[in-house]
Amino acid sequence: MTGLTNEKENQIIERSLIKYLRENQVKQFREEFLELHPYDQASFFSEIDEQDRHLLYHYLSPKEMAELFENVGLEKEQIQVYLSEMDPNYAADMFSNMYADDAVDVLNELDKDQVARFLKIMDKDAANEIKDLLHYEEYTAGSIMTTEYIKIEANQTVRSAMYILKKEAPTAETIYYVYVVDQDEKLVGVLSLRDLIISDDDTMISEIMYERVVSVSVSTDQEEAARMMKDYDFLALPVVDDTERLVGIITVDDIIDVLEEEASEDYSKFAAISDVDILDRSPLAAAKKRLPWLIILLFLGMMTASLIGIFEATLEKVAVLAIFIPLIAGMAGNSGTQALAVAVRGISTGEIQKETVQKLVAREAGTGFITGLTCGLIVMILVSIWQNNVGLGILVGISIAGSLFVATLAGTLVPLIMHKFKIDPAVASGPFITTINDLISILIYFGLASILIL
Amino acid sequence: MTGLTNEKENQIIERSLIKYLRENQVKQFREEFLELHPYDQASFFSEIDEQDRHLLYHYLSPKEMAELFENVGLEKEQIQVYLSEMDPNYAADMFSNMYADDAVDVLNELDKDQVARFLKIMDKDAANEIKDLLHYEEYTAGSIMTTEYIKIEANQTVRSAMYILKKEAPTAETIYYVYVVDQDEKLVGVLSLRDLIISDDDTMISEIMYERVVSVSVSTDQEEAARMMKDYDFLALPVVDDTERLVGIITVDDIIDVLEEEASEDYSKFAAISDVDILDRSPLAAAKKRLPWLIILLFLGMMTASLIGIFEATLEKVAVLAIFIPLIAGMAGNSGTQALAVAVRGISTGEIQKETVQKLVAREAGTGFITGLTCGLIVMILVSIWQNNVGLGILVGISIAGSLFVATLAGTLVPLIMHKFKIDPAVASGPFITTINDLISILIYFGLASILIL
Repeated sequence: MTGLTNEKENQIIERSLIKYLRENQVKQFREEFLELHPYDQASFFSEIDEQDRHLLYHYLSPKEMAELFENVGLEKEQIQVYLSEMDPNYAADMFSNMYADDAVDVLNELDKDQVARFLKIMDKDAANEIKDLLHYEEYTAGSIMTTEYIKIEANQTVRSAMYILKKEAPTAETIYYVYVVDQDEKLVGVLSLRDLIISDDDTMISEIMYERVVSVSVSTDQEEAARMMKDYDFLALPVVDDTERLVGIITVDDIIDVLEEEASEDYSKFAAISDVDILDRSPLAAAKKRLPWLIILLFLGMMTASLIGIFEATLEKVAVLAIFIPLIAGMAGNSGTQALAVAVRGISTGEIQKETVQKLVAREAGTGFITGLTCGLIVMILVSIWQNNVGLGILVGISIAGSLFVATLAGTLVPLIMHKFKIDPAVASGPFITTINDLISILIYFGLASILIL
Repeated sequence: MTGLTNEKENQIIERSLIKYLRENQVKQFREEFLELHPYDQASFFSEIDEQDRHLLYHYLSPKEMAELFENVGLEKEQIQVYLSEMDPNYAADMFSNMYADDAVDVLNELDKDQVARFLKIMDKDAANEIKDLLHYEEYTAGSIMTTEYIKIEANQTVRSAMYILKKEAPTAETIYYVYVVDQDEKLVGVLSLRDLIISDDDTMISEIMYERVVSVSVSTDQEEAARMMKDYDFLALPVVDDTERLVGIITVDDIIDVLEEEASEDYSKFAAISDVDILDRSPLAAAKKRLPWLIILLFLGMMTASLIGIFEATLEKVAVLAIFIPLIAGMAGNSGTQALAVAVRGISTGEIQKETVQKLVAREAGTGFITGLTCGLIVMILVSIWQNNVGLGILVGISIAGSLFVATLAGTLVPLIMHKFKIDPAVASGPFITTINDLISILIYFGLASILIL
């Protein structure tokens, strides 16, 4: 499956798989299908229709289905459909065989009583593990961790540790780190499989383990956990409860999803749209996602209109003023957006902290001053020449300079203030900033105009 | 280093480290310092001043410095400063001891003759590996891969494979996958360390290796490689040359950086700003980054002003028209931005492909129609009541409806067309779309007004 042959090869495989499936050639189907990576199995699964899926449920064991299902994505409606097609016992068995964190991800898309029903008929141990994980609040480290990790004790040898590792390898989510706990289950050390492999069999774990373990609490924000793993290049991160006991690990594949989700969220909110991800949605469904934002923006826009309305008398005297309204408001919006982008991204990557806030605000004030002055001068010259009216040029120029300065500051301060009050700055500040900047710039423009003309 | 104690603990450690450093207590310093994770070592390093850094260069071997330097970040100016402080031979030794891909990342920030000088005095083997990697174009799989992987042959036993693995573990970037090559160095299989560990020592590699290896070519785009690793949950991905020979691997830590970079880039371009990442920049430097965009936007804004200028006569007759200019232009901008966000993100995640373009455009046309109709009706009612003028209400309502429809379509089509002509749609389409939508909405508004009033 290298490079360009990829797609063609996949199509050929898919066609023969569908043939085997429909012609009841169970053995050939299983041979080919189980050779595929679970991600490819899931891609196949999500492309076939209901009839073919029913055949698949018969051809694959719940355990085999579990591996596929871990890769099937988390579209609520899709998951509901698939589960309704399966025999409840088959589905419950499948959940028992999934990694606990993945099972929880899927179950979180279901109604509470649906979950309760599955947990009832599921394998007891698996059900208990899943129940524990379901307790953690969304977006915390606890909610994305898994319980299938390998733990050992400090006073054993590398040989006996390797023995445990081999025994648990088939079910553990990662075997590349083993965690060392004391008799109270408290986390006291960590070892990579690399460390184990290059050590002599008789070495004691306590001698080679790394004691300064980096861990997070179950209630740590998932983004913070993700950033730590990224910074430290970890493949897994241990999660402890309030009493420092090891209760789970977060693996790198989950962290990639968190980081992507986060970046995508910032981006979406910025564009005033709930989510940008899903293409196969009807126009009506897409409109439903966008209309709430548009209607809010509409009312905010009406505020701007009202403000201009106050200056109608001025406009009636000097109609030419209207020409530059979009230019001034637009430029304020643009510089505000730039400042906003810096602040929002800085907050969500953790680059902006208490100590750096003052520095940022001072920097942005300076930046707004410089950009305002530059753009104001350019506009002044352009408008003076174009309209052959130096007075108008000066008016528009000063308005642009003032608007850019204020807009840049607002673009910085609004998200910072929101963050202080624990409101996600990405969510409301895009449209909010634009409206504030529209209002401010129009006030500056018409305020100046009224003073200068009257 | 759990949760909240984190920061305090770090400060105490830092203070004692600086003390040891300045008081020449080499042994104590090394003991404490080398216990730190390389990421923390690098954080310490980037916080101390030049004098302290000079001491550090004496206290740490080039090999120890290499581990630290791999985590020091890629700020061009910083790297230049650090390297100028080091003895050239020390620096060259450090590069020899870094993972080849990390060394290349750092060297890419230097001038060509600086690189040549380091390569000349460097260890021959390391220099050759680095030279090979430097050849690959930026943003390709080749440019981010490393050559420190473990390869074995198919006709050997698990025991002998484990022997090779143990021997190469200290220098390999990952030991969690081993790659199987034939006598021509062609990639024929892959095995995880997990597979090796759970197999009997006498099993032949050919029996247990996974033959359907997913790989990328050296010239594959790094984003595509990153997406594959994310989809398949790989910890490493093999890279082959044109003749299918294995030449390197990409590890998951590099992929996280690529995915983050990519999301951050889309985001920055969207906000019409070159990069949002760096806080410690002077106001002048920040203004320099933003002014080119603002000046372009300024000229585009002047186009809008000129268009309104054409309708000055109409405005003189009915000054009230001016009130709704920002509302109509703003709403068109908003809906265009929403559509744009979907298209840009879809293109960069690969969700939008040839087959889905038509579907997307049809969907967006429908969405634009629905949102336009809804917002148009609301505005019509609001303006009719507010201004006590049903004619004006209808005019503004129709203008909004038409503008939203056209703006949504433009927001979809412009990035698609740019993508077709190999222009990154994120880079130019933000301001471009806004201007197009300003122009279209004003044309609709004043066009209608002229017809209805005259």
